[in-house]
Amino acid sequence: MSFVITLSRVTAAHRALALTLRLRANTDGLSRAVTESRRFSPGIGYGSDPLGVQRRSYCSRMALKDGLFFRQLFEAESSTYTYLLADSDTKEAVLIDPVLETIERDLKLIHELGLDLKVAVNTHCHADHITSTGLMKKRLVGLKSAISKFSGASADIHLLAGDKITFGKHYLTVRETPGHTDGCVSLVTDDQSMVFTGDALLIRGCGRTDFQQGCPKKLYQSVHQQIFSLPDQCLVYPAHDYLGQTASTVGEERRFNPRLTKSEDEFVNIMDNLNLPKPKKIDISVPANLVCGVHQV
Amino acid sequence: MSFVITLSRVTAAHRALALTLRLRANTDGLSRAVTESRRFSPGIGYGSDPLGVQRRSYCSRMALKDGLFFRQLFEAESSTYTYLLADSDTKEAVLIDPVLETIERDLKLIHELGLDLKVAVNTHCHADHITSTGLMKKRLVGLKSAISKFSGASADIHLLAGDKITFGKHYLTVRETPGHTDGCVSLVTDDQSMVFTGDALLIRGCGRTDFQQGCPKKLYQSVHQQIFSLPDQCLVYPAHDYLGQTASTVGEERRFNPRLTKSEDEFVNIMDNLNLPKPKKIDISVPANLVCGVHQV
Repeated sequence: MSFVITLSRVTAAHRALALTLRLRANTDGLSRAVTESRRFSPGIGYGSDPLGVQRRSYCSRMALKDGLFFRQLFEAESSTYTYLLADSDTKEAVLIDPVLETIERDLKLIHELGLDLKVAVNTHCHADHITSTGLMKKRLVGLKSAISKFSGASADIHLLAGDKITFGKHYLTVRETPGHTDGCVSLVTDDQSMVFTGDALLIRGCGRTDFQQGCPKKLYQSVHQQIFSLPDQCLVYPAHDYLGQTASTVGEERRFNPRLTKSEDEFVNIMDNLNLPKPKKIDISVPANLVCGVHQV
Repeated sequence: MSFVITLSRVTAAHRALALTLRLRANTDGLSRAVTESRRFSPGIGYGSDPLGVQRRSYCSRMALKDGLFFRQLFEAESSTYTYLLADSDTKEAVLIDPVLETIERDLKLIHELGLDLKVAVNTHCHADHITSTGLMKKRLVGLKSAISKFSGASADIHLLAGDKITFGKHYLTVRETPGHTDGCVSLVTDDQSMVFTGDALLIRGCGRTDFQQGCPKKLYQSVHQQIFSLPDQCLVYPAHDYLGQTASTVGEERRFNPRLTKSEDEFVNIMDNLNLPKPKKIDISVPANLVCGVHQV
């Protein structure tokens, strides 16, 4: 990777850039709601028949508002999904979790489709890959970076619960889902047909909780309160999948997730005993992602 | 791969199985239309503004009929996409291009969702991976395999142009798209919102034409006549992608495909000079796929 340089070379530049970004930070395009509009029905249970219960779901999940463009993209080395959403009338677009290695592919698609990328948002400060947000800002005039205020990372926009990331007539609403890190957010489309869960909820899995402020109790509560409270038919789009699964639904995960169907105590016990190796790229990814992945300024 | 055994060991068994499958071949669940219903508008051109022209497209592509379940799955070694479609009322399902290595994942999902898998269809006789169709037939009672009549492969159902593969109130219509092989088909959903193109049309690419009856002229005509005649907004789901792209649209490929936007002569010249290495698995994949991928009977 020609982009990856050693920490010693970037520390000073990173600090300078972080400061610069903080100074010009603003929240254009965001309207911060004091109380988050919650249209879900927390009382609705999940029956014994996933497709039966979801009969209307697979209809309504498709009934997205007119003119929403959506594309899922994959980066194979870190098994990361990047998501591109756009209003096909105004062409305003949002990119979720872009990866440095695939910046040319993503920029080419954005260019071909004539999109006006407004915001590149990271669901958290990734430990397994470097974001392309910073480099992309250099290539696309007016692009703003966004990440949770609690990530500790610099960005143009610091997100809090209830914030709306607007693109044309569409928006994504921020839900704070800490536990994998303190600064994890999930992003929900305005019609609650899709949720981008980052590393909080994976398909039949979840993000690890053994580094970067990881806390299994917090993660359990985040997923149950902020994600499982969405409609069963809401499509789940995670930041990663390692088994070739591209999507799930809230209903499927509430029913079949092998970890999150357990009690909180059982979940904590599972997560505390995974004994996973340290992510290969954590020592370069986290410092880089704290400054939008820009290493050379 | 524990499934892969040498050719010499399987030849006799393959022949026996092929004969057995041919003897019990039938076309249950298929209604063969004499003339294919073509609801596309071949006169509609593709404007200079992909998202503008597709303004309604990204709405109508979502406006699939009620109760269509759809899931895209990926097998990383051969970069193959498998597609699962189901009627969420009747739970009848169809699986497109399943891969031997991911059979347990696919069966688990089918089981979790309570689906009744009626047909496992291969878009062609693959050279780069072994289908799981034959093994899956052993695991799921009543499952039928399907492939083009012109593939030369054995299957319960031999597909011809205009055939419909029915699952509940939904169906896929067969379009013959030879050129990569003689037995390549594309499968179009009843509302023409999705086309599964196999190796005929890939995202910004196409299947190679230098083995297995490959013919660039045929492929060019297949794509232009059978796929590019679909509505611009029709989503393109290929059998493979090597760059992490999960979907495209007919409109995008008509406009941006670097090979198929060329003249037929230029296309033939490109395809005749690719100088690609032989697929790693061709010597085991093709003979195995001629008998539904079942190696040991």
